[in-house]
Amino acid sequence: QQFTIAVIPGDGIGNEVVPEGLRVLERIGSIFGFTFRFQHFDWSCELYKNSGRMMPEDGIARLRDHDAIFFGAVGFPGVPDHISLWGLLIPIRRELDQYVNLRPVRLFPGVVAPVRAEAGEIDFWVVRENSEGEYSQIGGRLFAGTADEVVVQESVFTRRGTDRILRYAFEFAGRLERKHVTSATKSNGLFYSMPFWDERFAAMAAEYPDVQADQYHIDILAARFVMSPQRFSVVVGSNLFGDILSDLGPGVTGTIGIAPSGNINPERVYPSMFEPVHGSAPDIAGKGIANPIGQIWSAAMMLEHLGQAEAAAAIMSAIERVVAGDRNLLTPDMGGKGTTRSLADAIVNAL
Amino acid sequence: QQFTIAVIPGDGIGNEVVPEGLRVLERIGSIFGFTFRFQHFDWSCELYKNSGRMMPEDGIARLRDHDAIFFGAVGFPGVPDHISLWGLLIPIRRELDQYVNLRPVRLFPGVVAPVRAEAGEIDFWVVRENSEGEYSQIGGRLFAGTADEVVVQESVFTRRGTDRILRYAFEFAGRLERKHVTSATKSNGLFYSMPFWDERFAAMAAEYPDVQADQYHIDILAARFVMSPQRFSVVVGSNLFGDILSDLGPGVTGTIGIAPSGNINPERVYPSMFEPVHGSAPDIAGKGIANPIGQIWSAAMMLEHLGQAEAAAAIMSAIERVVAGDRNLLTPDMGGKGTTRSLADAIVNAL
Ligand SMILES: CC(C)[C@H](C(=O)O)[C@@H](O)C(=O)O
Ligand SMILES: CC(C)[C@H](C(=O)O)[C@@H](O)C(=O)O
Repeated sequence: QQFTIAVIPGDGIGNEVVPEGLRVLERIGSIFGFTFRFQHFDWSCELYKNSGRMMPEDGIARLRDHDAIFFGAVGFPGVPDHISLWGLLIPIRRELDQYVNLRPVRLFPGVVAPVRAEAGEIDFWVVRENSEGEYSQIGGRLFAGTADEVVVQESVFTRRGTDRILRYAFEFAGRLERKHVTSATKSNGLFYSMPFWDERFAAMAAEYPDVQADQYHIDILAARFVMSPQRFSVVVGSNLFGDILSDLGPGVTGTIGIAPSGNINPERVYPSMFEPVHGSAPDIAGKGIANPIGQIWSAAMMLEHLGQAEAAAAIMSAIERVVAGDRNLLTPDMGGKGTTRSLADAIVNAL
Repeated sequence: QQFTIAVIPGDGIGNEVVPEGLRVLERIGSIFGFTFRFQHFDWSCELYKNSGRMMPEDGIARLRDHDAIFFGAVGFPGVPDHISLWGLLIPIRRELDQYVNLRPVRLFPGVVAPVRAEAGEIDFWVVRENSEGEYSQIGGRLFAGTADEVVVQESVFTRRGTDRILRYAFEFAGRLERKHVTSATKSNGLFYSMPFWDERFAAMAAEYPDVQADQYHIDILAARFVMSPQRFSVVVGSNLFGDILSDLGPGVTGTIGIAPSGNINPERVYPSMFEPVHGSAPDIAGKGIANPIGQIWSAAMMLEHLGQAEAAAAIMSAIERVVAGDRNLLTPDMGGKGTTRSLADAIVNAL
């Protein structure tokens, strides 16, 4: 079996961790008997500086006929974030209808977390709405550049968009051991959007009586991520709240560097995209010390999505063994002295 | 000297912790030679259920001629949050132009925080915009109740509102030892509001060359609150981001129960309001185990605002000594066996 994968390393450390992810994929394929056809795309801020575009005009169309997209990170000093992201990452998520952003939070054996918790105690999923909500280009400025300047930013929540992410969360939780969905809300401050979100959450919870449901305002929920991360199983949030919680979660387990994500089109009409949660990290780019685990774990999520659950599990087991082993092999963000390359080598060898 | 204070206990544990705060205030006044005239207001969800209003129509006007407002918490099951809050707390903040929400985050000696940190290492302030931004009643629903339902929620940022909170943050940081302001942004996702916020932050930073300035997206900033809370001095954020960060901060130090806040009108045209960060906590209301420290620390912040810095410091010192002392005296949220009353007694005795 062969999978065709669109590869977009992007900027900064994206260019350092993606090749390691590909190496792991090649290796695992050779073990489990499948192959890849990788098609590389140089879409990035680099390209933007030369061409004025983050990707070609027919970019999205060129991604369509792949089995999945393997993405690094975009963003670079000099190109404002709201340009680089809205010119590449966000249109891909939207136009390929990857409306689920799925992000695991797990504390591995051997990792010293900033919070006092034991390995295994922290193991949950953030299900983030990935297509609408607070991330919107509706809005603008009045009296720009004057003392009277007013800026408006609109959030847009549809019933279709809200229901499908909530349903995904309940379905997903229903397949886990701990059948429990926690909703992130802020209906006491956000007057229209979040009361609506709560209504739909209540309606959906009624359809899944086997799944326990509760909800917290995002402020106290963030605090609970730190005070009692053990209690969560699936946490569902809007585009913005899911974004915050899915960085906070990995922060609680020690490093953003290991966190992966799937931008998923559950109907499989379009390819899904797998990328680490960390960004392009200009501060450490070029030093060869970026943590490759976020990218490699993303590769495992991609294999899972492609129906190769055993291969995915083999990668996870390799990551776990390496992380629990010689601390020196790990990258500096995990307290080690390793490099991107040496840590990836260790994982490849452990396969 | 006499201070006239409007007292609004509100709902739930507000009714349990406010009296303890008043007891501490009486006691400290008798030590330092000033008195209080407390005027009590029963504005609450209770009142709403009987009268259909959270406060009387002339409520705000009746608060105006006080030196300060001492607030507990509002919210109660059965009254939707977006009604209880928008009928009392939020109008007070806005109509009395309390545009600064000031919230300290501090790890006290003796407290075992969920994060691995030593007392003294965590000591910073969240300066939250308290009057505009994401908390807005502009928006609504289209096709309500149908499958085509669309909900719009507008955030509104003005230059006046943005500049005044940023200026407050820089002025405030300029008076601290660590002259450092960190801005919470999300300009890569929120297309209009946060790029504007960033522009104004950069403009303000240029006016305060003695104050170090940096900024992080809210997602990674939340993670950094957990991974390296030691590095912050003043963190400034919008209404929503400041709300999240000022619960997350106390979460990192162990309990929301001790966190205070000031809703401040810096020009002193209107009275400022002091309230704990925790809410009405219906789950523990009536049990007498709510932590009174958030309310008592709010009393200290109020005294500071009223020019009684020495008295405020005496309260803080009493809190610190009690917290570092017999663990059993503390309330259950801090791992102790104490009650609201016994913990407050200990603090009063320590004065
Ligand atoms: C009760 C709620 C509206 C309020 C807020 O979000 O402002 C609370 O969380 C706070 O932080 O004071
Ligand atoms: C880069 C940015 C637009 C993006 C987001 O907020 O979605 C990132 O933070 C993420 O979480 O994937």
